Amino acid sequence: MKVLVLGGDGFCGWPASLHLSARGDEVIIVDNFSRRRIDEELGVQSLTPIRTMVERRAAWQEVSGRAISVVELDVAHDYHGLLALLREECPDAIIHYAEQRAAPYSMKSGKHKRYTIDNNVNATHNVLCAIVESGHDIHLVHLGTMGVYGYGTAGMAIPEGYLGIQVPTDDGLVETEILYPTNPGSVYHMTKVLDQTMFAYYAKNDELRITDLHQGIIWGTNTIQTKLDERLINRFDYDGDYGTVLNRFLMQAAVGYPLTVHGTGGQTRAFIHIQDMVRCIEIALNNPPAAGDKVKIFNQMTETHRVRDLAALVAELTGAEVEMVPEPGDDYGSGIYVGLKVRHAKFGVGTIRKIEGKGDDQKAIVWFASCGPKKLLLRFAGLERA
Amino acid sequence: MKVLVLGGDGFCGWPASLHLSARGDEVIIVDNFSRRRIDEELGVQSLTPIRTMVERRAAWQEVSGRAISVVELDVAHDYHGLLALLREECPDAIIHYAEQRAAPYSMKSGKHKRYTIDNNVNATHNVLCAIVESGHDIHLVHLGTMGVYGYGTAGMAIPEGYLGIQVPTDDGLVETEILYPTNPGSVYHMTKVLDQTMFAYYAKNDELRITDLHQGIIWGTNTIQTKLDERLINRFDYDGDYGTVLNRFLMQAAVGYPLTVHGTGGQTRAFIHIQDMVRCIEIALNNPPAAGDKVKIFNQMTETHRVRDLAALVAELTGAEVEMVPEPGDDYGSGIYVGLKVRHAKFGVGTIRKIEGKGDDQKAIVWFASCGPKKLLLRFAGLERA
Repeated sequence: MKVLVLGGDGFCGWPASLHLSARGDEVIIVDNFSRRRIDEELGVQSLTPIRTMVERRAAWQEVSGRAISVVELDVAHDYHGLLALLREECPDAIIHYAEQRAAPYSMKSGKHKRYTIDNNVNATHNVLCAIVESGHDIHLVHLGTMGVYGYGTAGMAIPEGYLGIQVPTDDGLVETEILYPTNPGSVYHMTKVLDQTMFAYYAKNDELRITDLHQGIIWGTNTIQTKLDERLINRFDYDGDYGTVLNRFLMQAAVGYPLTVHGTGGQTRAFIHIQDMVRCIEIALNNPPAAGDKVKIFNQMTETHRVRDLAALVAELTGAEVEMVPEPGDDYGSGIYVGLKVRHAKFGVGTIRKIEGKGDDQKAIVWFASCGPKKLLLRFAGLERA
Repeated sequence: MKVLVLGGDGFCGWPASLHLSARGDEVIIVDNFSRRRIDEELGVQSLTPIRTMVERRAAWQEVSGRAISVVELDVAHDYHGLLALLREECPDAIIHYAEQRAAPYSMKSGKHKRYTIDNNVNATHNVLCAIVESGHDIHLVHLGTMGVYGYGTAGMAIPEGYLGIQVPTDDGLVETEILYPTNPGSVYHMTKVLDQTMFAYYAKNDELRITDLHQGIIWGTNTIQTKLDERLINRFDYDGDYGTVLNRFLMQAAVGYPLTVHGTGGQTRAFIHIQDMVRCIEIALNNPPAAGDKVKIFNQMTETHRVRDLAALVAELTGAEVEMVPEPGDDYGSGIYVGLKVRHAKFGVGTIRKIEGKGDDQKAIVWFASCGPKKLLLRFAGLERA
């Protein structure tokens, strides 16, 4: 099939493009090379040397005998370029990675928040709008994140897509199905919530065929294809913005630093290897929803780890030490931290959202299921772990 | 108090500005005058002659002895202008009307969809981001719409803000509260869903104080203040994009045309007079949430009418005739229309989302609570009203 890979120069887009090209798809990469510019902005670079797109394409042609086309285009701001491309190429599917994808980067400043909102929302909406306007029946596959549900859902089954609920009506309770409620923890995560709202609308209103893959943290660097030639190598980011937790542990171990675990390290995260991620993309492409179907939403993960267990694993393999770093303000009581589920005598069960101040003045904002957020002075609140 | 009225030149913003100025608030209107440009684009104008902002301000000064400041600024695209204004003026509150507000306009073409998304999402996010970056404790009051919940909720109590639900967890069902699930029917309505997602995030993450008023259809033209001088008169729109149903009935009656009711006219809509709308704004300003509170969400409405009853009311008052116009494709069975709740032998209760084709080929997409959307050939589907 013919596939457009939006953001095909990035950490996920590049190996996905090669994987699909290798299986015989006609692949067209669309990218504005923003990821390379952000490296320059942050003064960092991938540990693995990333070649120019010209070199990457030439290497792939040499190794595989297959050609990948590349179109330089800003999906978020060049709508007419995108629409013309869809009309000309009539792709069977679009894989949409053309979003700013780092939560810490999205929170650096007002400028970074606004860039993330403007880029991600307009990119997604332009793609949806262009598919409708092109008149072609194109399957859209989007990379979302399980992080849209928040990370305070300890004890809950990991949410996936939809939730059946009962809504009170004049005739009693009615069963209905909704998008699983979200609780984004960063502007980046919020854009993925906005995305799924737009997907639901366009699937319903325009009968677009959409698959939304909610990925866990993608680890690893290479896939079968990127290992074929060093010019094809994929990114390994380890900076504070784009480096995920495992990469940072590995770098700390490699340079002889202790592995830093913040708070209790009890935060559980879902992981998937990049080779499995590209396989998930292939499965999604092979199993599109029908026109008129609701958005297909699937989690993409193979394992979950608590952060401190991951550190212990890396320490065992490398001989590095693990250093537990208290969260700022984490000094009242023992082990009070953001995300902890607690029980209050009056308000019932809630989740700690924010901790402020120190010592006797330390307060926590706790979100209670019964009554929403409450700010409590910790020394009088009598909170117990729930 | 000092209040910034974003979109203060528009149908709601102008009377709200005068109302607040009259009660002694220091009012600063911020507007890019987009509503006037859209009149030119559509080749229509308000039935009531709208003066320039210079004339409006002078008239208000003359009549009331009070000054209103005006800043020409595009909230969606001039972030630094907005931030500088907040830093300089330190307002107590911001009323945010700076959005494209017509559902039909938002659906005219890809260009109009994209304009509505880009303008409304960036305007709202810029306001939120600028409040955080200004460091001031500013209460944000936003005009939303009850239409975010969709109009297929016949039989349900009109939703307002939040819904308590039960979520399955490893320990059994847990009670929690979510934003009431939405079902937007246009790109305009969808932007209001995106807005409330951003409000929830910024209220939780940055403890912004936010009130979101979900308005019904606002009817009427004038308030106490706009009646004081004909140069202060408010808009009366009756075109197909910005004219709401009541205004169009009134115009049809005035020019001797029959009042056109589409489908069965059984669609129920909520209404509020513009004088009550500005009073709601005042109540909201006087009762801000505390920092750390969840977003205050209130419906603003005083009455509900079925469209055909509204037509009958106008007909009775004016002597006009009512003409029932079948919906396109509404010719199979009797009274099958979008929004109707139906029962299917196998799938249970669902709501008709779309009707296609004619006669024996007529199909409906029905969204069933049990299994999502199904496309059914009506002559074999055996649907009954639920």
